[in-house]
Amino acid sequence: MAISADEIFKEFKENSIAEFFRKNRQMLGYAGKVRSLTTIVHEYVTNSLDACEEAGILPEIRVEVKEIGEEKYSVLVRDNGPGIPKNIVGKALATILAGTKFHRYIQQRGQQGIGASGCTLYAYVTTGKPIHVRSSTGRESYECDISIDIKNNKPLVSNLKDVDLNFRGLEVYGEFGEVKYENSDHGVFEYIKRTALANPHAAFSILDPYGKEFAFLRSTNVMPKKPKAIKPHPLGLEPSDLIEFAHRSDSRKVSSFIMETFSRVSQAKVDELKQLVSFDLSKNPKDLTWQEAEELVKAFKKIKWMAPELDSVSPIGEKYLELAMKNIINPEFISVVERKPKVFRGGIPFVVEAAIAYGGGAGKRGENQEEVGGNIIRFANKVPLLFDSATCAITYAIKNIDWKRYSIKDFEQEPVSVLVNVSSVFIPYSGVGKQAIAQEDDIVDEIKLAVMDAARGIQRYISNVRSRNMAESKYKTIMRYVNQLSNDLSELTGSNAKEIEESLKKLIDSKYKKLFEEAQENSYVLNEENEEKKEGGEEESMG
Amino acid sequence: MAISADEIFKEFKENSIAEFFRKNRQMLGYAGKVRSLTTIVHEYVTNSLDACEEAGILPEIRVEVKEIGEEKYSVLVRDNGPGIPKNIVGKALATILAGTKFHRYIQQRGQQGIGASGCTLYAYVTTGKPIHVRSSTGRESYECDISIDIKNNKPLVSNLKDVDLNFRGLEVYGEFGEVKYENSDHGVFEYIKRTALANPHAAFSILDPYGKEFAFLRSTNVMPKKPKAIKPHPLGLEPSDLIEFAHRSDSRKVSSFIMETFSRVSQAKVDELKQLVSFDLSKNPKDLTWQEAEELVKAFKKIKWMAPELDSVSPIGEKYLELAMKNIINPEFISVVERKPKVFRGGIPFVVEAAIAYGGGAGKRGENQEEVGGNIIRFANKVPLLFDSATCAITYAIKNIDWKRYSIKDFEQEPVSVLVNVSSVFIPYSGVGKQAIAQEDDIVDEIKLAVMDAARGIQRYISNVRSRNMAESKYKTIMRYVNQLSNDLSELTGSNAKEIEESLKKLIDSKYKKLFEEAQENSYVLNEENEEKKEGGEEESMG
Repeated sequence: MAISADEIFKEFKENSIAEFFRKNRQMLGYAGKVRSLTTIVHEYVTNSLDACEEAGILPEIRVEVKEIGEEKYSVLVRDNGPGIPKNIVGKALATILAGTKFHRYIQQRGQQGIGASGCTLYAYVTTGKPIHVRSSTGRESYECDISIDIKNNKPLVSNLKDVDLNFRGLEVYGEFGEVKYENSDHGVFEYIKRTALANPHAAFSILDPYGKEFAFLRSTNVMPKKPKAIKPHPLGLEPSDLIEFAHRSDSRKVSSFIMETFSRVSQAKVDELKQLVSFDLSKNPKDLTWQEAEELVKAFKKIKWMAPELDSVSPIGEKYLELAMKNIINPEFISVVERKPKVFRGGIPFVVEAAIAYGGGAGKRGENQEEVGGNIIRFANKVPLLFDSATCAITYAIKNIDWKRYSIKDFEQEPVSVLVNVSSVFIPYSGVGKQAIAQEDDIVDEIKLAVMDAARGIQRYISNVRSRNMAESKYKTIMRYVNQLSNDLSELTGSNAKEIEESLKKLIDSKYKKLFEEAQENSYVLNEENEEKKEGGEEESMG
Repeated sequence: MAISADEIFKEFKENSIAEFFRKNRQMLGYAGKVRSLTTIVHEYVTNSLDACEEAGILPEIRVEVKEIGEEKYSVLVRDNGPGIPKNIVGKALATILAGTKFHRYIQQRGQQGIGASGCTLYAYVTTGKPIHVRSSTGRESYECDISIDIKNNKPLVSNLKDVDLNFRGLEVYGEFGEVKYENSDHGVFEYIKRTALANPHAAFSILDPYGKEFAFLRSTNVMPKKPKAIKPHPLGLEPSDLIEFAHRSDSRKVSSFIMETFSRVSQAKVDELKQLVSFDLSKNPKDLTWQEAEELVKAFKKIKWMAPELDSVSPIGEKYLELAMKNIINPEFISVVERKPKVFRGGIPFVVEAAIAYGGGAGKRGENQEEVGGNIIRFANKVPLLFDSATCAITYAIKNIDWKRYSIKDFEQEPVSVLVNVSSVFIPYSGVGKQAIAQEDDIVDEIKLAVMDAARGIQRYISNVRSRNMAESKYKTIMRYVNQLSNDLSELTGSNAKEIEESLKKLIDSKYKKLFEEAQENSYVLNEENEEKKEGGEEESMG
């Protein structure tokens, strides 16, 4: 007998987002013990970097990881940032989807309001322990324990008291289970190292579970150009965005609402719009219908706009990118490219930077540090992406380049490392764990162009190396015969063998020296180009 | 000057989960136009299948896709299921994370309470249109429009009225933008085809955007064994689960709570537990502390338990799996394996089925239908997984098999298709879009074993084919010389050349015939094995 709908739906209820992620924590990056530990450090460190940057403070971040039991570790992260106000700290660290960042149009590492609350959840689920927080904002200074009421996605704050602290900023301490510290490409140390390289204005010190201290000093005291919160560009809008903005607006007319809310909209543009839509732009934006929003979006596409404001995007910069590559892999040759800002989805600005390293320490390493082929190093908004490589737009773009055109016969076989950083006010991640960039066409295309640009530099270097190698081997082969030839000629002509040998050597030397010099010169030219670019990069980063 | 914490956090707010997915719809599977359309059909069809199965109704599902504008399509899905009660329909189709399935421990396709509400959200975001619903539950019969209040994650139900309907069940109709119908491996048609193959008790009819009608009739009138809702097994629990259950429990003592809530817990087991924990099991479960829950979980691991109830899992069955392979790819040879149920995370039951097809239509096809190498066909709880292959446990397991051991020199180069279905009360998906299974060790290992099992069948077939081919080519080579040899022998001996040729041919034929027969016999044995398995499979699926 069939069971009725009423019977089936009698248990119908709503689930909290915290409950959902408790069951599906693999979606937050808590899958695998090594990855889980890296995820925790990643969430706290990115929050610290964002907070410092927003407050205009040069970041100084302390990370301590200690083994406290079987597959149990404590993690402490302390920064010198602005701290968190006492009345907000619970929500900030123990309410999933709460935060300051949703409605601002600004480049930041965090976007979602999930990360730190996810750590609190994971601590609770694996050890039952709250997170211990100490913070000094200058105005107040306190400590407390924070856990999460999973059923209601609400913070549980306890033991809150005012205390004197010997630092200004935020310190979080948590105990986590089902985690493991490992010195691998996916581990905490590698994560911090790469973060330091992409954030040269930040200083990091680490205490690892073996009691070892490491420090990454800052390589510049210049704060990166602060990304500006910008207004959305008309070309990046969909009808649903427009309605959302319109219904929240205090403007009295759609026309003024558009001019105030979006960038590049002048009175002249509004006049153009008037001709393109069937309704009156002086109506109240609160009454804007879907139909009208759709008309507006279509009209936006017919108008010539100035490009979006691009100073919302803050890339690493060529100078630091090159430094990063040198420090990470110390290769024979580096080629770096910072592309001009582009837009995706019609109006969201983004910048792609690419660096390619060849020879030396470049390329993937096997267990015994032997070369095993091409290597991809990914960043989004200066945050290293260590997981989910296979689904990432960066990996996809790089694998789809015809490397043979750049003198690289097989990417999987050669000593080459490709680093890409994508910066944007909105990075479309493929998952909640933010470890891969979704394969949006505009972004994939731009990454390809950037990497191909950089590959051209590498190509010249590789051809040079190859022609030098060829010249060298020819030279050596000929030199091997010089002695024999000199003796033979001496016998035939009666001249002195030594003299003949000397003059032959001189002749050969002079010819091949020229060849060598050409090769040298070419690589010198390449380096000079890089120097020039470096300076350009510096200028930009000071602007 | 540094900006203060109060300044930074003044815009602090909570985001609704609907708002989060509006911005990050790529995480729900809305990335790419073809994929987005398939996602919509997938969400509605899996809901229909689940509802029918739960109500004990043989599913009959109608899908209509029509082009209604530029990259705009309407999708209608109608089933003959139990319908949805009027007072719940809004929440069921327009509240993210609402549903009946969270707290039940039963194998179903849907798990999250996200899918259908995600469709409502996507319709709103891309066309501003509500979903039109018609439903008859037997007790009531109505229609209405449903949209979603994104800011509050609440349903907006309008135009609700009682109507006479000429069907029993649920019909949803929506209009969606940024979608595209395509006859590819990732398209709607392929999705329905694969769903039909894994659900032989369901009938599907499709109207495609070109006005063509297709039907997949049911191949059995026997409902699949209904998965039972089971109690969780003690070995699958973590302290946080235990506390969650304990604090919700009405039992008066921890001892009775454990016996009532979990499976395989007898009075004898409780007595054993008493010896292993430091606290009194007669305390109220509402007062269970984390410390105590941890003790219990540790104690659970020290006790010998009966295995979890395994009838919670409902696989496709070998018979239908083989049928599916024949229908999808019509290969030369098929090897099918259904493994016994196993558990992961200590106590969650799951079953892996694998089928390998070789030759004929097996293997990936290029644009012109040419063979291009090995092909992986993935299912989770009988739902086809068409996207995110690279991150899936199934792909990972298959790529990490040493295929050479099974006479397959290079998986990427041979005409081989591997189908895997993983069934469980809880599938750990790697993302919210549910297109890949997370790479949990227990699951990856079991998939490997299943595929390797099936590969052994294939190996025997391939070796046979190879030895037959070798015998055949030897035979042909020798035959080529028979005529010449006969003439030569005739000249030397004076015997009749024709006679010599006849007797030589007989000699060779008899020797090679034997070889051929052996090869034939072997492949016959393989087929017989399959026949036997088929019958076994049927029996099981009727149990």
